[in-house]
Amino acid sequence: MKLENSSDVSDKLDWNRFCEFLWFSEKLDFWLDISKMNVSNTVIQKYQPLFARAFEAMQRLESGERSNINEDRQVGHYWLRDPHSAPDDQIQKGIENQISSIEVFCRHILDGSISPKPSVRYTDVLWIGIGGSGLGPLLIVNSLKKKNTGLNFHFIDNVDPDGFSSIFEELKIRFKSTLFVVVSKSGGTPEPRIAMDQARHAMEKQGLLWSSQSIAITMIDSHLYRKSKAESWLKTFELQDWVGGRTSITGSVGLLSLGLVGGDIRQFLNGASVMDNLTRNEIVKSNPSALMAISWFQAGEGKGKRDLVILPYRDKLDLMSRYLQQLIMESLGKKLDRDGNLVHQGISVYGNKGSTDQHAYVQQLRDGVDNFFVTFIEVLSDSSEIYSLAKCNPGDYLSGFLQGTRTALSQGGRQSITITLKSLNERSLGALVALFERSVGLYAELININAYDQPGVEAGKKAAADILDMQDSIINRFNSVSKNNISQINDYLGGESHESIYFIMRHLVTNDKSYTFTGDWSDPASLEFTKLL
Amino acid sequence: MKLENSSDVSDKLDWNRFCEFLWFSEKLDFWLDISKMNVSNTVIQKYQPLFARAFEAMQRLESGERSNINEDRQVGHYWLRDPHSAPDDQIQKGIENQISSIEVFCRHILDGSISPKPSVRYTDVLWIGIGGSGLGPLLIVNSLKKKNTGLNFHFIDNVDPDGFSSIFEELKIRFKSTLFVVVSKSGGTPEPRIAMDQARHAMEKQGLLWSSQSIAITMIDSHLYRKSKAESWLKTFELQDWVGGRTSITGSVGLLSLGLVGGDIRQFLNGASVMDNLTRNEIVKSNPSALMAISWFQAGEGKGKRDLVILPYRDKLDLMSRYLQQLIMESLGKKLDRDGNLVHQGISVYGNKGSTDQHAYVQQLRDGVDNFFVTFIEVLSDSSEIYSLAKCNPGDYLSGFLQGTRTALSQGGRQSITITLKSLNERSLGALVALFERSVGLYAELININAYDQPGVEAGKKAAADILDMQDSIINRFNSVSKNNISQINDYLGGESHESIYFIMRHLVTNDKSYTFTGDWSDPASLEFTKLL
Repeated sequence: MKLENSSDVSDKLDWNRFCEFLWFSEKLDFWLDISKMNVSNTVIQKYQPLFARAFEAMQRLESGERSNINEDRQVGHYWLRDPHSAPDDQIQKGIENQISSIEVFCRHILDGSISPKPSVRYTDVLWIGIGGSGLGPLLIVNSLKKKNTGLNFHFIDNVDPDGFSSIFEELKIRFKSTLFVVVSKSGGTPEPRIAMDQARHAMEKQGLLWSSQSIAITMIDSHLYRKSKAESWLKTFELQDWVGGRTSITGSVGLLSLGLVGGDIRQFLNGASVMDNLTRNEIVKSNPSALMAISWFQAGEGKGKRDLVILPYRDKLDLMSRYLQQLIMESLGKKLDRDGNLVHQGISVYGNKGSTDQHAYVQQLRDGVDNFFVTFIEVLSDSSEIYSLAKCNPGDYLSGFLQGTRTALSQGGRQSITITLKSLNERSLGALVALFERSVGLYAELININAYDQPGVEAGKKAAADILDMQDSIINRFNSVSKNNISQINDYLGGESHESIYFIMRHLVTNDKSYTFTGDWSDPASLEFTKLL
Repeated sequence: MKLENSSDVSDKLDWNRFCEFLWFSEKLDFWLDISKMNVSNTVIQKYQPLFARAFEAMQRLESGERSNINEDRQVGHYWLRDPHSAPDDQIQKGIENQISSIEVFCRHILDGSISPKPSVRYTDVLWIGIGGSGLGPLLIVNSLKKKNTGLNFHFIDNVDPDGFSSIFEELKIRFKSTLFVVVSKSGGTPEPRIAMDQARHAMEKQGLLWSSQSIAITMIDSHLYRKSKAESWLKTFELQDWVGGRTSITGSVGLLSLGLVGGDIRQFLNGASVMDNLTRNEIVKSNPSALMAISWFQAGEGKGKRDLVILPYRDKLDLMSRYLQQLIMESLGKKLDRDGNLVHQGISVYGNKGSTDQHAYVQQLRDGVDNFFVTFIEVLSDSSEIYSLAKCNPGDYLSGFLQGTRTALSQGGRQSITITLKSLNERSLGALVALFERSVGLYAELININAYDQPGVEAGKKAAADILDMQDSIINRFNSVSKNNISQINDYLGGESHESIYFIMRHLVTNDKSYTFTGDWSDPASLEFTKLL
């Protein structure tokens, strides 16, 4: 019995490599295999000095140094699951109190001792948050929510008016038993602010009281914080300034969502904490995050030359790729290194789930461009709730598909990492997240970038604000001069913004019935717009 | 009023380019802008001869040539929306009859004249299909389903036992009013076959009759076809052998799903047909698919050197990237060109939706590696159902975010395409799909590959089957010799498959309680497995 194309010799070599590089934690029932990556003992040797520096940097970060120099902030997500490691007593106590208070609060919500009305229990959550304020909770709910346990979650992670209306339409009959959670670190991000206004308006139309059903998660003294306190919202949880959005899953953001679906917060934190300990090991071969970081480095030559494809073979992990896409790309996608050199770094991440994707893009992975490496995520334990048929056991097929694809990629000279969990639960998800967090941290040190700021996101907010200001100016123009072509508007604005004017007017005439146009859209010079009075 | 970093000179140049390369169809209210791509008149000139060949090839394909030479099949998805263009009367009549019969069938399901019991109407659909048999319907339902219209859809697109049990758990109280649709072209793909067995078992446990509530979509004379006929299922629709899974969205697969959510099938087909006509234009600059294909070619140097990032600024289009990922990567990701040269072609595709992704990986797109180009998809028409606040209109923000990101990418030297639809509906979705289908077809001709086969998917099925066979042999071994280590099993199998044995045994001992082990997982040689009798 042999796999296609394999030869005895290559199997022996493969098997020796597999055994040599295999990492396993009995505590976590967690495996990592990097034997199919372009990593050797020589390579590990070579990077040892770089890793020594990286471990030192991680240690300084964990001990409270302001490692996010560009934003002058500490980076504290590792403290969240091991409060004793926090740099001072106040932070430690703050974390411990927050965990307990979230735990108690969620218990009271689920047992009905906190309820919207004496006779009504909370049934649903409308979670409003974008980026890290949405993706962590999305991952948690998708991976860990069990049927008939905890509240049902709905997410608003955008400003799409169609999105608002379809979610309100679905949820409105249960607004009276819905908990509204607004997450915004700064409190100033437009998306959650607008979504909050819309949700509040929609529920208040039913005569409900926003403050009694709403929760804020935000930094102390943010605009949102002051508002929630002034209006006495049901609860306000702190989002510490040393917790970045993309690493907030073990902070108040992730824990509240986990508690509200009835998950075990302590197990989640414990899984992360155990993995943190294992990934502090300074021997590269004994440290799964170091093994991942060196694999990434080798695959992309330290310049992101290969994409990371995330392939979990489980439906419940199909959001893992989006979660990791943010964690990795937002952390590593940087223009400058720590010394100010132009480096344009990053690793592109995408994926969905197996075996589904074998019928989609895996065709290209097997046969096409060698511009990627895969990270398989395998979960060993299958549901025992479905019936089993001899030779048709779905779990065996799922496992067979993973193995077949992994072997075939390797035979085709394509690299892959395989992560194996005994089962998917709070503890293993915590460990998985912590593994990737530390891998990102180490890799960032290897390539000498700040993994903890996101200047492009800030610039994006500014660019959008400029467009909205321009739209206001254009509307002003039409209020005084009712007929304009693009060039006239451009002159009025006093700059050179033809293209933006075209985009703004196209959107405006579609949605605002008081504007009309003549001319041909394919010939912008022919267009003339009129505001009806 | 100027955008950051823009200068008057570059705006003028940008604006001239924008106007020059702008493509617009009044018939479809559909815009395409490729001015931010690395395409010039000189480039278009240069590729004119290649395009002439590509258009000829497309014409031969549309006239019924067996263009999918490797599988010796015709490629007929263009006929589906314009039956008159089919190469013979029989095909034409077949398509026309199929459209009418799906239309009538769906109407009868929705008006209750076809119902599971006289007093009960269908409420739900459990759609079982993987790859193109799942992604098209997923895209249609996600994009076009309106609240309170049509049936509610649930999808099984995997063999995950946990996935089965969670969907059955959710749906079982409505099994009696659920329509079960099984899509499998060959009828032999394990995923839909296993899912069908599981679903059938789950509903029959309630005393329901599978054949009276189930529909098959499959090739004539497939195993599934014969089974559905022999058992007199509620309905059997043909999946023609000249329709590939990834282009089945305008065939029976897509149309049935669209009809069952109450969508307008004729409008969908008409949108695709109008776009087909527009993309037959042999003047590159007047043909949106040719403009896309040349943009892709330029961005990736004809070798897929840049990833295609799909960024629709609408919640309802968030599955567009997965749909296009399959269409593009499965079509273009090929090892050999048509002349048998080793080329390892493809274009990697990923994405999700804006503005959400601006808070995730757009940081990297703005600041990081230049290994991608974006395709923005803009929808002009906003929902009027939400309330509007001065200066806080969500639709304006969404548009502002798109424009800000587009401009910033361009200022940073990153390429992008912008597709703009007046509104999202059956017609515009049909046009959008047809635009990409033809772009893929033309690009494949430019790089001389067969876009219509998928040898890697077939090989993947084979590789998984090998693993399952090996598992059977291992189980046999344990039935005669109850205690084995990996090396003993390997000797018994008579080949060299240590790694596969390790994977199989790890999965087996986790799920089958009759197996136990001693030893350490991190030291495979120490492991010994026992089957309890």
